[in-house]
Amino acid sequence: MKKYNFNAGPSVLPDVVLEAAAKAIIDFDGTGLSLLSISHRTPEFEAVLNEAQSLFKELLNIPDNYSVYFVGGGASTQFFHMPANFLGTKAGYVNTGVWTKKAIKEAKRYGEVKVLASSEDKNFTYIPKGFDIPADLDYLYICANNTIYGTEYKADINSPVPVIADMSSNILSRPIDVTKYAVIYGGAQKNLAPAGVTFVIVRDDMREKVVRELPIMMNVNTHIENNSMCNTPPVFPIYVLRETLKWMKAEGGLQVIYERNQKKAAMLYDEIDRNSLFKGTAEKEDRSAMNICFVMSEGNESLADEFMAFAKDRGMVGIKGHRLVGGFRASCYNACPVEAVEALVECMQEFEKLHK
Amino acid sequence: MKKYNFNAGPSVLPDVVLEAAAKAIIDFDGTGLSLLSISHRTPEFEAVLNEAQSLFKELLNIPDNYSVYFVGGGASTQFFHMPANFLGTKAGYVNTGVWTKKAIKEAKRYGEVKVLASSEDKNFTYIPKGFDIPADLDYLYICANNTIYGTEYKADINSPVPVIADMSSNILSRPIDVTKYAVIYGGAQKNLAPAGVTFVIVRDDMREKVVRELPIMMNVNTHIENNSMCNTPPVFPIYVLRETLKWMKAEGGLQVIYERNQKKAAMLYDEIDRNSLFKGTAEKEDRSAMNICFVMSEGNESLADEFMAFAKDRGMVGIKGHRLVGGFRASCYNACPVEAVEALVECMQEFEKLHK
Repeated sequence: MKKYNFNAGPSVLPDVVLEAAAKAIIDFDGTGLSLLSISHRTPEFEAVLNEAQSLFKELLNIPDNYSVYFVGGGASTQFFHMPANFLGTKAGYVNTGVWTKKAIKEAKRYGEVKVLASSEDKNFTYIPKGFDIPADLDYLYICANNTIYGTEYKADINSPVPVIADMSSNILSRPIDVTKYAVIYGGAQKNLAPAGVTFVIVRDDMREKVVRELPIMMNVNTHIENNSMCNTPPVFPIYVLRETLKWMKAEGGLQVIYERNQKKAAMLYDEIDRNSLFKGTAEKEDRSAMNICFVMSEGNESLADEFMAFAKDRGMVGIKGHRLVGGFRASCYNACPVEAVEALVECMQEFEKLHK
Repeated sequence: MKKYNFNAGPSVLPDVVLEAAAKAIIDFDGTGLSLLSISHRTPEFEAVLNEAQSLFKELLNIPDNYSVYFVGGGASTQFFHMPANFLGTKAGYVNTGVWTKKAIKEAKRYGEVKVLASSEDKNFTYIPKGFDIPADLDYLYICANNTIYGTEYKADINSPVPVIADMSSNILSRPIDVTKYAVIYGGAQKNLAPAGVTFVIVRDDMREKVVRELPIMMNVNTHIENNSMCNTPPVFPIYVLRETLKWMKAEGGLQVIYERNQKKAAMLYDEIDRNSLFKGTAEKEDRSAMNICFVMSEGNESLADEFMAFAKDRGMVGIKGHRLVGGFRASCYNACPVEAVEALVECMQEFEKLHK
């Protein structure tokens, strides 16, 4: 049976990327060695790393005054690295769920944290807007897409202070104005790579703004100065990331991917809104194109387990909602094909017919 | 041409492991999904993680009062995590080269560091012995094998204080008495896995000895309590690590691997000592079985480049010595076959004949 992968992360990657990765494990670029067994200091791997960086810059339209580096440790590590580097006195955070809560907790170790806005009053089903951003903050911190709740910032924020954004789950899914951000980072295991590599994009002026002495591996300047090679980088995840970026470029670049993501999201949200058995959980204007959350509609709550089994029998994988929200979540990352969304929509329609 | 991989790390892995990894990227355990695209919260991956831990414990004979966890970030991250967790007042370090120097530098951020012994006087070509270990230290820190210089502790240290050992480059290459250590950690990209995963082995009593409030991801207890799943772990490197441990067990376990390592090292050191063109760089009693360092002998220094080219033409990969030592380094990790060492020995003998 054909499987349709809607995992929230680690998640679906393009077939051509998987095939290239499997091949490189047996023979990397005709070297006669496995990608897993080569030195990271070889010209062959340095070429992979450099191409990953330059494709990242090209696809996301990152200006020259930004550096891109790759490290291990995951976004959770950046939750404390960011304030350790940049929180001298006071920072502003927008609380949009579990991931910003964790980031806020870590930031408090390093200075004062002002929560400028929060959507906790409605279980994080929307993105706060119209909040004030004091000009005396070291930075403003946001999570650009909230995997658990299916909410997403649809516009880049105009801020008088540097903006640091966790884009783990929507990086390179839509065009953004990078110049509106001082730092963008994220775990790459949603749209770009397998688990094990984190991307960090840093504007040059931030390099001077590191506020304290830090362990070598915590300092953003270490990774920029050493071009992601201060220690052995996660070679294999970086290779796969490079392959995914090559795939994106071959598909036509970010605008094409974005339009496809919009199409997939519209198809699925339209069905959620049309189908009498289901309803969406996030505010319509803040609905994420990446993580599409829905539950059974009023009066149909008891059908949840049956739908889960029904969908599983039709090849749907990873559509169980996060335990904090319940219901269902279809993560439709870049590599999720339109065909998968069509199959899920059809599955929802069939299920509705059964219960008419 | 057949390649013989002597890379210092990332380094050679068994062919069966590479084949399993390539296969799992296309279809993981018959799930119809790629290993790179599955959730780390699936029972299938949790089984991989748990088996990796239990095989690690079984092969290294780790007692029940120790935990094993896996994280990203590399050993360089542990250089500061260790003192952050355990250095309250004063720690003792033995300086055996670049890696302990880095660890000492990080430790000084957290407390007093006493360098109990150093082999810097002879460019780290030996392992200091017979030094005093004050009983008031929070811990004693060593690097069990020094990749760059080819030196290795051959005996576990009897210490009145907890011993923390970086075993990045000799873990599971020889039996050790784990009970002599409080913490053992290392990057796994030498003997066990591709780059991207770090193992940490912690004795239970150390869990109570964390001396300060720490960011979540820095605290050893986080990773133990969450069974390496506080955040998304490096799924693929952990899978490969599990496969390598399965291979080790199938080969007959640690004693068999150890004897093979001893045999390989003896073959190569014997040739270095016999061959008039070469000489070893490390003190004989401290010679590493993992990283075998040698240079051209007196009067033959000018042949170095020629030998490098000669060896390369015969398929030798990664035998250039570290720039701090020069000459040559053949890393003979667990997965390096006896055949590779035989080929290198033959190559050295042929080269000698050319210059007789």
